[in-house]
Amino acid sequence: MATSKFSPSRRSAVPRFQVMDIVGDVEAMKAQDYDVISLGAGEPSGGAPAAVNREAARLHNADVPIFNYTPSLGTRKLREAIAGHYRRWYDLEIGYESVAVTTGSSGAFVASFLAAFDVGDRVGLARPGYPAYRNILRALDVDVVDLPAGVESNFRFDVNRLAECHAQQPLDGLILASPNNPTGTMVPREDMRQLAIWCAENGVRLISDEIYHGITFGEDRGTSAWEYDRNAIVISSFSKYWGMPGWRLGWMLMPEDLAPAVSGLAGSISLCPPAAGQYAAIAAFTDDAYAEADAEVAEFARTRQLVLDNVERLEWRNAAPADGAFYYYAQPSKKILNHYGNTVAYAADMLQRAHVAVIPGVDFDGVEGDQFIRISFAAGYEAVARAIERIVEFNATID
Amino acid sequence: MATSKFSPSRRSAVPRFQVMDIVGDVEAMKAQDYDVISLGAGEPSGGAPAAVNREAARLHNADVPIFNYTPSLGTRKLREAIAGHYRRWYDLEIGYESVAVTTGSSGAFVASFLAAFDVGDRVGLARPGYPAYRNILRALDVDVVDLPAGVESNFRFDVNRLAECHAQQPLDGLILASPNNPTGTMVPREDMRQLAIWCAENGVRLISDEIYHGITFGEDRGTSAWEYDRNAIVISSFSKYWGMPGWRLGWMLMPEDLAPAVSGLAGSISLCPPAAGQYAAIAAFTDDAYAEADAEVAEFARTRQLVLDNVERLEWRNAAPADGAFYYYAQPSKKILNHYGNTVAYAADMLQRAHVAVIPGVDFDGVEGDQFIRISFAAGYEAVARAIERIVEFNATID
Repeated sequence: MATSKFSPSRRSAVPRFQVMDIVGDVEAMKAQDYDVISLGAGEPSGGAPAAVNREAARLHNADVPIFNYTPSLGTRKLREAIAGHYRRWYDLEIGYESVAVTTGSSGAFVASFLAAFDVGDRVGLARPGYPAYRNILRALDVDVVDLPAGVESNFRFDVNRLAECHAQQPLDGLILASPNNPTGTMVPREDMRQLAIWCAENGVRLISDEIYHGITFGEDRGTSAWEYDRNAIVISSFSKYWGMPGWRLGWMLMPEDLAPAVSGLAGSISLCPPAAGQYAAIAAFTDDAYAEADAEVAEFARTRQLVLDNVERLEWRNAAPADGAFYYYAQPSKKILNHYGNTVAYAADMLQRAHVAVIPGVDFDGVEGDQFIRISFAAGYEAVARAIERIVEFNATID
Repeated sequence: MATSKFSPSRRSAVPRFQVMDIVGDVEAMKAQDYDVISLGAGEPSGGAPAAVNREAARLHNADVPIFNYTPSLGTRKLREAIAGHYRRWYDLEIGYESVAVTTGSSGAFVASFLAAFDVGDRVGLARPGYPAYRNILRALDVDVVDLPAGVESNFRFDVNRLAECHAQQPLDGLILASPNNPTGTMVPREDMRQLAIWCAENGVRLISDEIYHGITFGEDRGTSAWEYDRNAIVISSFSKYWGMPGWRLGWMLMPEDLAPAVSGLAGSISLCPPAAGQYAAIAAFTDDAYAEADAEVAEFARTRQLVLDNVERLEWRNAAPADGAFYYYAQPSKKILNHYGNTVAYAADMLQRAHVAVIPGVDFDGVEGDQFIRISFAAGYEAVARAIERIVEFNATID
């Protein structure tokens, strides 16, 4: 057959995530009975709130359980419940019509990028950042503008730097995550206000990724862009705070001008988000479920403190402020970097010899990421405590 | 705020589905306690096989139910089970590596179109057809080439017509569905063979939508493009034959050259398909589940026969061959069309006065669709029987 006549599209040439290769290696080692500790994936270890699972079980146990398509933007009940969450946490009045339930935050990214940006538009991404933004934008032929927000600016990005970048290369959009992945760093409240208002005034569509809201270690649960301006697209998810990554349920707050476009696209690109999950997720907004999720956050805080207390023993430096999420992003010592050249080799050797999986920063930062690693402490206190001892011991073998 | 500075992208200007508006009207009427019979959506009325629901309930009831991310292309177990399905139904040996589990067939369309086509590529669509193909392609800035396959060719499309179209406007891709939505018409086995081979020889990427396979009313469960050539992309789903539309689980068979691109994209655009559904869907491939699904198909066949037996009373003509799926696509009588001008007005009046929802063909065919309607008999025998009497009575009031 004429295989040579065919080739993949240019737009699909997105880089493979290191993290997925490492996940594969970890699986293979576990299959060979190695005791591997993974500080890789950003998956909370506790699972969904009990009430959500109970409700899902009940629905599947019904006499004739039928999960048909729901409306493309989600059931009205769940959209209302999500709107209620903004009243509870942010003191914001939002109509359910502004809420689109999506298939994870991934679904929200694809739908919102399509709704907001055309081929050749220019969208700024703070670096380091979640690599899917870049990959999706490139697949949609939107130009990505790199906005350095690394160690030289203490991993922060503010309105002055945005104005500077925009003056050099005008932007159509800006994606900001707070708390950020991979750093956990948050955009301070006043910075968020200035950024949102500047974007509105300058016609730059702000996409505010708020999926780590609620997992924070200070007073502030996270500031929503919609507290300041409703031209922004807000994206969030059940995956992190509520511990439901595999459920594939997220949402977006839609600016009024984009709502018809998102609604029109949603039916075609996703049809609807998973139905049973939508019915069950209503229970995520009960007092009990919030309390359960907050208990998980307290556990993340304990684990984070353990990491902070051991940073010197781990020989890590230049760490990003870990204000929220469950990540720690730092640079191994000069000794380690001189030995390996980069963190890809360091992480690979650590996995092979110490049986601890960490993620080299190259997924998140194509420029300086090979000098950084990310660990996720979502795996839990005990796992992280054991991993730290292994890493300390492993580092000691490096000369 | 500066709302006027913002507008949706040009690419997102996809037409709204009539069917979604009608679904909304039906909901509103039901909320007012009207006894509405909907022959609108393509949703099997029986739900998932019992074993699949049992397994899902069991998983959610587990002591600590955790649904983390799965690999982006799905769990290996489910990919293997799907490969087994091709052995069972098509006598095909397929490695699990060729199978990508997707978030419904919608997820497979987005991923495969991105992997196969660049901006400005030209993809042929048989008309009438499923409108999401066109909408997704347009949102991705791929050019859609209209391939008439309506009443003048008895709703069929063969290799001669393809070669003719290609000679006039060279194609990069072709999407064919068999059984087709909205017509239910199937591509005969020999035509599929010729089409698949012609596409391979001419470098035209064939995308074979096989989601209605198994719901057929003759000997043939449906012919897979992979029986003839593995350069084709095959797309299928748990939504129809297994009655699981709201679960958002589908799959794709990936040509070898596209597999790395699909794998790379999948992590970014979807992360992974819903996890609990993936675990439970394994049970869809048991003998009991196939038997349950086949019993549903027998019920569709009975309902289809009822429609066929009543075509004259319904004053419908020029019907597409309803070989499979659960649709009947036909043209109302001249009397009706003269009265209303088009089927949009006919369907709207029928819903208001007879409380029966049918779908005007405009969603599926932008040229001749306003002279056709689609009914879905997935609603079940009793509902369709009652709807027929209402429509006959309603038609009699039209002069």
